[in-house]
Amino acid sequence: MSEQLTFAPSSAALLEPYLPSLHNGSSPSPSRPFVTLTFATSLDSSLSLAPGVRTRLSGPDSKAMTHYLRSRHSAILVGISTLLADDPGLNCRISSATSQPRPIIIDPHLRWKPSGSDKVLQLCRKGQGLAPYVLTGVSISDIPQESSAVLYDHGGKFIHADSSAPGPNGRSRFDWNDILNALERESLSSVMVEGGAQIINSLLEPKYHDLVDSVIVTIAPTWLGQGGVVVSPGRVHDENGVPLPAARLSNVQWHPFGEDVVLCGTLRS
Amino acid sequence: MSEQLTFAPSSAALLEPYLPSLHNGSSPSPSRPFVTLTFATSLDSSLSLAPGVRTRLSGPDSKAMTHYLRSRHSAILVGISTLLADDPGLNCRISSATSQPRPIIIDPHLRWKPSGSDKVLQLCRKGQGLAPYVLTGVSISDIPQESSAVLYDHGGKFIHADSSAPGPNGRSRFDWNDILNALERESLSSVMVEGGAQIINSLLEPKYHDLVDSVIVTIAPTWLGQGGVVVSPGRVHDENGVPLPAARLSNVQWHPFGEDVVLCGTLRS
Ligand SMILES: NC(=O)c1ccc[n+]([C@@H]2O[C@H](COP(=O)([O-])OP(=O)(O)OC[C@H]3O[C@@H](n4cnc5c(N)ncnc54)[C@H](OP(=O)(O)O)[C@@H]3O)[C@@H](O)[C@H]2O)c1
Ligand SMILES: NC(=O)c1ccc[n+]([C@@H]2O[C@H](COP(=O)([O-])OP(=O)(O)OC[C@H]3O[C@@H](n4cnc5c(N)ncnc54)[C@H](OP(=O)(O)O)[C@@H]3O)[C@@H](O)[C@H]2O)c1
Repeated sequence: MSEQLTFAPSSAALLEPYLPSLHNGSSPSPSRPFVTLTFATSLDSSLSLAPGVRTRLSGPDSKAMTHYLRSRHSAILVGISTLLADDPGLNCRISSATSQPRPIIIDPHLRWKPSGSDKVLQLCRKGQGLAPYVLTGVSISDIPQESSAVLYDHGGKFIHADSSAPGPNGRSRFDWNDILNALERESLSSVMVEGGAQIINSLLEPKYHDLVDSVIVTIAPTWLGQGGVVVSPGRVHDENGVPLPAARLSNVQWHPFGEDVVLCGTLRS
Repeated sequence: MSEQLTFAPSSAALLEPYLPSLHNGSSPSPSRPFVTLTFATSLDSSLSLAPGVRTRLSGPDSKAMTHYLRSRHSAILVGISTLLADDPGLNCRISSATSQPRPIIIDPHLRWKPSGSDKVLQLCRKGQGLAPYVLTGVSISDIPQESSAVLYDHGGKFIHADSSAPGPNGRSRFDWNDILNALERESLSSVMVEGGAQIINSLLEPKYHDLVDSVIVTIAPTWLGQGGVVVSPGRVHDENGVPLPAARLSNVQWHPFGEDVVLCGTLRS
């Protein structure tokens, strides 16, 4: 039996205004999933000391909060570099949870070769989590037979999506509208976007702010120092080339939480 | 008459444990000034959108807080790039203030040519602030006559300090022990270090943590985006080359403050 977590109802009540409705789990727009962007950073906005270096940032309450939030979403989404670097479980260990969220992996160039020893698939075999749906730009017919077989055997699958949006360093990207459409087609009514930095930075681009229903950021009172995996969206300019803030939260609440603080807000203006 | 600011006594009470004693203003160590490190950043740890781009980060309460903090220190310290980029007033406009803090400018290579039109000197002539003490690595005898004259006429001066500590990008630096010794010799019993980023990053180096008595950071719920003036200390490794967090605060308190949060803590372990 794996460790079970509990999250105080009084803390949960503080987050409630920022979560998908308990009754129908649906988003303000019926045509796309409710999107919660959530992650933990240092004071210098790093998710970790370096890619693949497990970094204990936030306190134990924060871990329970993450699992509570997972219990309130039908899907949890991470980028392929997080999967490859961390081998995460991507399940929900809150004791009150009645169902598991569906892991969504954003892997446009199909860098993952699923194997039975991956933690997410191990937990799935133990009945402690679901197998991932992998969004990829690769045609389904070009996916190696072994990869498809392992994933399908666990109840997961590959989903093809158009990945022709331009990204940084010349690599093609998904448009977030296409990602959310794909989730909608799978009847996933809410998604918690967890990271890593590239995923978050791309969702924080101004053109996607309307898609984000709420933002929940935990900040730990630590500076990780230069060279970390940094959350900071791309630069935004006005028509005269003058730099502008890239994103600002509204409906802001700050909740001290042990040594950390939890910031809740919305991106829509 | 310039705008006067007020700061609520209830807010001031929250900060009191992190400030130099009201009675003697002295530091825990009688041989050096009490050091408060304070600044305002975005969620992505930027002080401003770009050097010299005035960036309204935090709300009006935060401005009053800065001036209240200034009223509680005998000196306020900034780096030369902040002086040159912002032409700041460096005075205290809190209505209850009974004296003005002494501005300290860290200018190892003497990039400032003081002129009567600099805002800090204008305010000084109006009796609304003090003229700066400029810490420089240049020998006093090598300082241009006009520069010295302007500064002395306003009641400021140049102070020579050894600037042979190695800094980033090959530029020589002051050791913070030498900076604080220079202030101590001027009978300045407390100093508020305000920025910019290079000043803060150098003070956040592990070897200086013992010199910092308290840290007060205001965080605004905004991402300024890549390319800002970023607070993030240099990378720290253990003896095996494994990266470590560069700095962690203790005695942490988070105080929501309008839309912003004010983080108070100490660096000493
Ligand atoms: N503290 C936390 O809350 C937290 C949470 C999650 C992760 N992390 C940490 O974050 C680190 C990994 O972050 P990371 O930035 O390196 O990687 P990441 O965001 O997990 O994954 C980056 C990759 O995902 C793909 N991708 C990202 N945005 C995309 C888009 N819009 N469309 C299509 N593909 C997209 C790209 O794959 P291709 O390059 O193949 O195109 C990109 O290289 C790890 O160290 C992990 O521990 C921390
Ligand atoms: N939001 C806030 O709270 C806040 C507060 C202050 C400033 N700011 C912003 O910060 C920006 C300026 O920051 P910045 O990082 O460019 O400049 P800065 O830190 O103000 O000044 C940097 C310069 O100071 C000198 N210096 C720094 N550390 C030193 C040390 N330990 N010993 C000796 N000299 C040292 C160096 O001068 P040399 O290169 O000549 O050697 C260095 O180039 C501006 O945009 C300003 O608006 C914001």
